Amino acid sequence: MKLATLNDGTRDGKLVVVSKDLSRCIAADNIARTLQIALDDWDRISPRLEALYAEIENGSAACQPFDEAQALSPLPRAFQWADGSAYINHVELVRQARNAEVPESFYSDPLMYQGGSDGFLAPHEDIPLGDPTWGCDMEGEVACITDDVPMGSSPADAADHIKLLMLVNDVSLRGLIPGELAKGFGFFQSKPASAFSPVAVTPDELGDAWRDNVIHHPLMVDYNDEPFGRAEVGQDATFNLADLVAHAAKTRKLGAGTIIGSGTISNKGEDGGPGKPVSEGGAGYSCIAEIRTIETIYDGEAKTPFMTVGDKVRVSMNDAEGNSIFGTIDQTVVAAK
Amino acid sequence: MKLATLNDGTRDGKLVVVSKDLSRCIAADNIARTLQIALDDWDRISPRLEALYAEIENGSAACQPFDEAQALSPLPRAFQWADGSAYINHVELVRQARNAEVPESFYSDPLMYQGGSDGFLAPHEDIPLGDPTWGCDMEGEVACITDDVPMGSSPADAADHIKLLMLVNDVSLRGLIPGELAKGFGFFQSKPASAFSPVAVTPDELGDAWRDNVIHHPLMVDYNDEPFGRAEVGQDATFNLADLVAHAAKTRKLGAGTIIGSGTISNKGEDGGPGKPVSEGGAGYSCIAEIRTIETIYDGEAKTPFMTVGDKVRVSMNDAEGNSIFGTIDQTVVAAK
Repeated sequence: MKLATLNDGTRDGKLVVVSKDLSRCIAADNIARTLQIALDDWDRISPRLEALYAEIENGSAACQPFDEAQALSPLPRAFQWADGSAYINHVELVRQARNAEVPESFYSDPLMYQGGSDGFLAPHEDIPLGDPTWGCDMEGEVACITDDVPMGSSPADAADHIKLLMLVNDVSLRGLIPGELAKGFGFFQSKPASAFSPVAVTPDELGDAWRDNVIHHPLMVDYNDEPFGRAEVGQDATFNLADLVAHAAKTRKLGAGTIIGSGTISNKGEDGGPGKPVSEGGAGYSCIAEIRTIETIYDGEAKTPFMTVGDKVRVSMNDAEGNSIFGTIDQTVVAAK
Repeated sequence: MKLATLNDGTRDGKLVVVSKDLSRCIAADNIARTLQIALDDWDRISPRLEALYAEIENGSAACQPFDEAQALSPLPRAFQWADGSAYINHVELVRQARNAEVPESFYSDPLMYQGGSDGFLAPHEDIPLGDPTWGCDMEGEVACITDDVPMGSSPADAADHIKLLMLVNDVSLRGLIPGELAKGFGFFQSKPASAFSPVAVTPDELGDAWRDNVIHHPLMVDYNDEPFGRAEVGQDATFNLADLVAHAAKTRKLGAGTIIGSGTISNKGEDGGPGKPVSEGGAGYSCIAEIRTIETIYDGEAKTPFMTVGDKVRVSMNDAEGNSIFGTIDQTVVAAK
């Protein structure tokens, strides 16, 4: 099934069930007022939401049009957002550009940071930028939402707790990252609010394209209305989403509504080296930092500037028939008021 | 006023207003079912809670006994928990023990990490430890809860958004910290669930002991029933709580119910060097790591072991008359099931 949260003026929005083709929706108020409430009691509530979804699909439910522009992030605020870095190709490129090795442990022990979750941008909401020198970047990713995950869960057990899938634009302020990482406490000011796709879907919606806890479709990232990234999410994933959930749950249980992200999707080139731009037939990039890294490797310096006021990013994913699965994250950078 | 959240079997508990002497309480259901709901609309709801508090204090409200053991953390789960490191003395000692300098920027740019907030331990709840080699430690701290804080707020503006104060035991797994910090993404597995004091109080409850956005009372940390720390919170604070809130809000707004912590309270010794143990007339320590660091400086090696199964920690704070302000965090380490 497909779920979304409409902006009704409240902080947590109103849960709706959305048709498979994203054209229609119906309020789920009588089942669960918000997505968090549904996740808090998922085993009991999700069958009722699935029943409503079936009614939408068989035409027996009275729907309203679904407008992505009215959607908030499926969880407009969440109790946990943790982002992995499963595509080590991205890390390899960054290290190659500065002639550094990738530690062997990175291939067995996932990188993960604790993100801010007190308020996410809506999928079509502007990205407020306080200072152009902060180096604003998009990061196109996929993410899952879990129910309660016991402490010490194995990846196999963790897989059973993946209840919904989404896309993410993990907004990053590249200019602030080196200083923050040098302090040793990880990202904070360099990771402002992220935006999630208008729709969250249960894994079964992906059919065969959800296997081994990885999505097998390209992630489409458009930058200023041009194709920028078409990286295959199912390729070059050192860790799958269940691995990342298990990593997060190693020393503590995870509460229902925990969001775990994949990190920037990144494919190697056909020759195993850096990937080519979409305009040259490659899979392109899911963030600007990666093309800048490749420019640095080949040309000695980065040429593509980071995002500034007026720049536009779209993140979406189509099924094999070309239909949008999650709706589109569609954002423009604006000067913060 | 003083507020607490009682365990009623729900994830977010039931908001109660507590008497100043912590002996009685009364349900605030009819005003706000949970503390988060109150914080979401604080300007409208807090006067009604204050009115109920006045009724408790003047004896006109029908109270029930308040039992700290029935309290959850005031926010049993939160949308944001970010912890600063305002007591640079602690950082100085850690660096001194390994002959490293403290970067000059640490005195003007606060250290802060994004913590997990999807589920906090109750104030009297056991600390589940998966592996004794993880090096379990307590960190005695103070924290504030804010309402909505605009992006780019100055410390002066941020001060107006500090609505409640609490104590914290920020449980840390010291054995996992070096590996995580070496990866560069900050703390994750090394910071399992924290516990907060049974009661959160409005700053006015502290009278003159709340000034310049710092609490001016000693934080009492007892370890295995012996006084371990009596550090003066108002002393050696490089940053106050408003500074830390402003730091968190530099690149993004903060949502209502954001919890910002002070970091481990740490006082210099009378001679400006490392502080002495309580048993030797000093202010002691708010975490085991600090005494281990001092042992390393003086004796070449750490002697005090980290916490393991059966070890007990209590964190509390008294007013000038010796009355408990926040109730007591009282936890025992147990083997994780």
